[in-house]
Parts: sequence; structure tokens; C-alpha cells
Amino acid sequence: MSNTIALYPLSNFTFSTKEAQPEEDPSVSARLQRLQNNYEDFGMRRTVEGILVVHDHGHPHILMLQIANAFFKLPGEYLLPGEDEISGLKKRLDDRLAPPGPPVEGADWEIGDCLAQWWRPNFETFMYPFVPAHITKPKECKKLFLVQMPEKKVLAVPKNMKLLAIPLFELYDNAARYGPQLSAIPHLLSRYNFIYQ
Amino acid sequence: MSNTIALYPLSNFTFSTKEAQPEEDPSVSARLQRLQNNYEDFGMRRTVEGILVVHDHGHPHILMLQIANAFFKLPGEYLLPGEDEISGLKKRLDDRLAPPGPPVEGADWEIGDCLAQWWRPNFETFMYPFVPAHITKPKECKKLFLVQMPEKKVLAVPKNMKLLAIPLFELYDNAARYGPQLSAIPHLLSRYNFIYQ
Repeated sequence: MSNTIALYPLSNFTFSTKEAQPEEDPSVSARLQRLQNNYEDFGMRRTVEGILVVHDHGHPHILMLQIANAFFKLPGEYLLPGEDEISGLKKRLDDRLAPPGPPVEGADWEIGDCLAQWWRPNFETFMYPFVPAHITKPKECKKLFLVQMPEKKVLAVPKNMKLLAIPLFELYDNAARYGPQLSAIPHLLSRYNFIYQ
Repeated sequence: MSNTIALYPLSNFTFSTKEAQPEEDPSVSARLQRLQNNYEDFGMRRTVEGILVVHDHGHPHILMLQIANAFFKLPGEYLLPGEDEISGLKKRLDDRLAPPGPPVEGADWEIGDCLAQWWRPNFETFMYPFVPAHITKPKECKKLFLVQMPEKKVLAVPKNMKLLAIPLFELYDNAARYGPQLSAIPHLLSRYNFIYQ
């Protein structure tokens, strides 16, 4: 595992918009109900998300989606039963962020280390970065992967979302605003030495 | 990098005591003054600490020192100028936790991945898991390394300290008790899949 990662400036990336991508579920309770239905049919849900890192003036920033001017999320989604994690994450990143039309040559995503796993013990909203004691059948496992951004890239963001570059110092110690998963990203990245191109 | 790690039960480890090891500095302000003096002589302080993981009933626990029935710390210390990180950490772990007497064959420490780096921007107590913006000369960099515990080991703890096995669920979301560095350990370990032996 290399601990050295090149980061490129936010200004190298081009952001356009594309058609809106409405949420699959209209509410949190509908989402949890779908989770439960899928669990009964297919077993534990597997979710993959990407931590896309760039820099602005020599400080790392994470590219995050903001939905309805409210909550933040990393790009990614749950996988189909049996679907491969890495190719599945690439497909979800394309679905969310690639410009419409046929794939551009050389625009493949470079998926790096798995940085964290979050476990959902019950059909509830809370998740933990470990399998809680006495839980033998977690309902979801979400893996966060480092995504190494190339020197330049064109991204297209669904119209109903924003893509924001959030600095590490804003995420750090800020679970109140970003929740436990996103506010821990500075910890997960701290072992890397970044080279600011 | 392997993401799979074998953990052995806490009951496999033998704990004895040895002579007290008083703190090098009598107060926080004396410690910060020494940091400043050393910085002027040798530049940025480099500190290494070990995250020693065992399990109890299938849940990961971290071995931590408790000093004076009050604060918790990981075993480790600052390095001498030019000293190698890995051999320096092994030496600090021996100083703190090896039984007195000549080294036992096969009792070498197995140092794994660097899991986090914490940076001290000023001669102050606070540290961050990134180099804050506009800080070009941090005063200390502390690296936390995974230490893979062997199947069995005899440890000796200085009389003025306790060695406690703290479960991840106790550390998680508990900066109030354990501080920002120790309470983030569950995040740092979450990408590993543990095999409970």
C-alpha cells in the first residue's frame, strides 16, 4: 500500500449538469422498508461509496453531493446481489457523475484502498464502524473507497443535486453538521501523505 | 495491504508489573516547554505510538495505558533525531511493556500499517489529523501504527500505570472521555476484517 497520493487542484475539474436523478425512496421510512424487503429476499445489503479527493490551495477537499440544499452524501449506492464491489462502484460513480453519452476513453475511475466499513445492525438509521457485540446478522455493510482523481476530469451533476468540495478542516469534529460518517473522513485520510500538484 | 487480521483473546496475554516509570515532565506546560526547546535544537518532533488489538468474546479491544487512574494513552513515545520509526517504536514498546531482563527470543513486535498521523501546529496541546491550512512548520507529527499481537505474549506494566483493554464500542463517539485521538480508533480500524481466534 502506497501512502503517498497526488492531489490535483479543484480548478482542474469541469462541472456541468445533467438530468435530475430523484431519490429512489420518498422518505427515510420507505428507504428502511425497502432495506428490510431486500434483506428478506437477498440478505445483507452491500453499499459502496467513493471518497473523491482534490485540493484547493494545498488543503485536501472532498467532493460531496448535496441534495435539496440539505443533507450531504458521498457518491455511491447499494450493489445488486452478487455484483462486484469495484466495478459496481465505478458504475455508480458513472451513473451519478459521468457526462451523458457514450463513455469517454481514459475516463475510468481509479478506485483505491477501502478506507472504512460501516455496519447497520438493525433496520434503523444508525450505523457503526464495527459490528456491535451480539449482532450476528447485520443488515447492511457500507464500504468507503478512496477514489484517486486524475489530473483532469469532466463531471456532470444531476440538476437536483450540487457537488461541493468540502475542506477537511470543515468536516473535522463536525458530526453535528455532517454526521458521523462524513465527519470521520479526515481521520481516515490522515495516514496518507498528499502531494499537491 | 492485507485487510484481514487475526485477533487473539485477551486471556492469552499475561500481565505482570515492573518498576514505575515516572512521567518525563511534571506538568503539561513543562512538556510543551521541552517540545519548544527540542524544536529549536532538532526541528519537528516525531512521535510513534502503537495500537495493540486483541479481542474479548469476539469484540476488538485496544490495550491502553492509564496513568494515575486518570488519563489514557497508547504505548509509544517521541523518537530521537534521525531514529527509525519502526525500530524506534519497537524499542518504546519494549521499554514500556516488555518484562525486565534480556529480550526473549521470538518476542519481537510486529508493526503493521500506519493508521493515522496527527499534527501539532503550535506549541499547544491541540493536534489535528491533517496539517492545518497556512501551517508550513508543524511542531510535531505523531504516527499511530497497528501492532499485530501474536498468539500469546507476556507483558510487564510499570507499577504507576495500568494496562486496560478498552472495547471499540466504549471508544466510539466518546471523545469526551478518551479525547479526539483515542476515540477515533474505531474509525481507523473499520476497514479491517478481523478473524477472532
